[in-house]
Amino acid sequence: MTSQAAHRVAPTGLERSASADAERAARVLLARISEPEDPAVHRLLAETGDPVEAVAGLRAGHPKALASRLAARLERAEDADDVFIAERLGARILIPSDPDWPPGLLDLQMPPHCLWVLGPVALAPALRRSVALVGARAATAYGLDRAQEIAGGLVERHFTVVSGAAFGIDAAAHAGVLAADGVTIAVLACGIDRVYPTAHARLISTIAQTGAVVTELPPGSAPYRMRFLQRNRLIAAMTGGTVVIEAALRSGSLQTAARAADLGRPVGAVPGPVTSMPSSGCHQAIRDQLATLVTDAAEVADLVGGFGVDAVERPREAPRPEDALSPAQRAVFQVLPMGRSASVEMLAERAALDVLSVQASLGPLELVGLARRTGERWLRS
Amino acid sequence: MTSQAAHRVAPTGLERSASADAERAARVLLARISEPEDPAVHRLLAETGDPVEAVAGLRAGHPKALASRLAARLERAEDADDVFIAERLGARILIPSDPDWPPGLLDLQMPPHCLWVLGPVALAPALRRSVALVGARAATAYGLDRAQEIAGGLVERHFTVVSGAAFGIDAAAHAGVLAADGVTIAVLACGIDRVYPTAHARLISTIAQTGAVVTELPPGSAPYRMRFLQRNRLIAAMTGGTVVIEAALRSGSLQTAARAADLGRPVGAVPGPVTSMPSSGCHQAIRDQLATLVTDAAEVADLVGGFGVDAVERPREAPRPEDALSPAQRAVFQVLPMGRSASVEMLAERAALDVLSVQASLGPLELVGLARRTGERWLRS
Repeated sequence: MTSQAAHRVAPTGLERSASADAERAARVLLARISEPEDPAVHRLLAETGDPVEAVAGLRAGHPKALASRLAARLERAEDADDVFIAERLGARILIPSDPDWPPGLLDLQMPPHCLWVLGPVALAPALRRSVALVGARAATAYGLDRAQEIAGGLVERHFTVVSGAAFGIDAAAHAGVLAADGVTIAVLACGIDRVYPTAHARLISTIAQTGAVVTELPPGSAPYRMRFLQRNRLIAAMTGGTVVIEAALRSGSLQTAARAADLGRPVGAVPGPVTSMPSSGCHQAIRDQLATLVTDAAEVADLVGGFGVDAVERPREAPRPEDALSPAQRAVFQVLPMGRSASVEMLAERAALDVLSVQASLGPLELVGLARRTGERWLRS
Repeated sequence: MTSQAAHRVAPTGLERSASADAERAARVLLARISEPEDPAVHRLLAETGDPVEAVAGLRAGHPKALASRLAARLERAEDADDVFIAERLGARILIPSDPDWPPGLLDLQMPPHCLWVLGPVALAPALRRSVALVGARAATAYGLDRAQEIAGGLVERHFTVVSGAAFGIDAAAHAGVLAADGVTIAVLACGIDRVYPTAHARLISTIAQTGAVVTELPPGSAPYRMRFLQRNRLIAAMTGGTVVIEAALRSGSLQTAARAADLGRPVGAVPGPVTSMPSSGCHQAIRDQLATLVTDAAEVADLVGGFGVDAVERPREAPRPEDALSPAQRAVFQVLPMGRSASVEMLAERAALDVLSVQASLGPLELVGLARRTGERWLRS
């Protein structure tokens, strides 16, 4: 946090662009030589308050333990021309002081050093109104349908949908957005030049052409398991809220949800049949009060969106004529027979009301079409 | 409340049985001449603190408005010999001062004046550990299966299951208990001599032979709609908690749940597919925090049962060998290749660890069967 606050102090003129370039180079180097949530690196950044100084220190062998641990990667990283590589890939590199840096990432204790971004969409405005839809790779047809439908409903409500381009729920969420001509952002757990899973080459390339593909890992990085967990914190932090659609009991999706909750973001979970294993993580999250139960896009918007604007209308059944009745009218209606008719006295006795109240109630009941008179007797109409 | 407190003061000897008989007769008469939740009747009882005195007043025309309103029913009720009728039906009549009166009913603001009970089970001990299972008449196969299964699981856990003998969830819950040779109690919204719905004649008679059938309405009473809602408060109050299995958005089951919550009883709801209308009431109740999400009998027992005794074991997946790893071991495991092998130096660079840490980690990984050595190189085993 300290380091970012420092970066927001704006130098002027040439000094500014020179320092910005130096900072960008330092941050890209830090991304090259360390894993995303390396606590020693973030401790160093917090202490120096400046990535340029931190990198200079590491090059000079300080602090000793960290510099020695990262030495091999540092040596190799010096050869990489990341500005050139990014240009060749058509990607842009963002650092926290850039106006397009996703503001939500500033809430992270160990934020990314920089981001590689492919695609026409500007991140900061697109993420102002955004939801992460995440879930099981081994999803069911029920889960995939929910993901597509909720994603489409969120597009209608002008939300950007963020996910991880994985098999199952992630892919269905992205596809639901694309089918509705909306904006979707895929956050990868590998380099921007890598396609993982390879079967999603076309999906990821479509997202890169219409939305954005984002990663904090430098080009060439492979998708190790730890990197998925680290990637999840970006999805949780950059969005307004996270919704889990299907998730096994111990899964990356629930970890994303937990990280979102830790960051104070609203978390939703879609229920399903209790007999469906992929819904068990959702049910557990709701039971643990980690997540709010959500059933459709309107309820997701209500959870994540702005107050008032997105307030969901409570689902309800159509009002019935009986709803507007007084207690006496209701009591008379209850005892009105269906087939045979009854006298006012019989109705009074059945309802335990006096005759006058029954007479006073029958008129309004007739008026709204609930009672019918035959001679001196009454029945339901 | 005041009146009930008075009844617990125990007179002695003959005086006692004479006063008990008088009270019983007065309460049966009140049940005959008024509907269950008639506020004026309960106000009168609260004022006089004594049903015998209240009935004497009504017979003498006080209070005027109420006495005149109930006059026709009072006149007819004087002819009914309810002790004889109950005997002929094989039913017993309980009043609040009886030891078998369900203690939970004392929490109601407008408790029943008395109860008609058929069946071998003593109510008070059976209800000490009890759950109400309620839900939609128009239930789905999914809901019916859940009701049967949860009911069976509750029998295993020595719970009495209370429901309303209606079509759908109610019937499935009772049936689930009977199939497991457990104790179930049906609370009716009509007289004990009536069978509603008529298609459940055999179910209700089986319950009367093995458990108990209960109602606060005198013999001959028909099942009016209002009486179902009033009946629901008995189900909510006499049990340790209420669980809704499927329910439309505006339904009697949700009203039972709301009454249980008002009485401070725990309330559960079973989720289902969001595409299933009969699950929508359950989802709404969970969203409104009226109900806790429950997926099986163990979670119901956890919700309703005694602390400790019924604490549910959190569902979880089997532990994996990776779970016990240190952060360094985990990092090394992540970068261990699957097919080709890698040198310690390559692993150190990939994991951003120093060579010594990698070497220290590989031993334990080999030991737990996660890493395999080929010459000087390593891979996953």
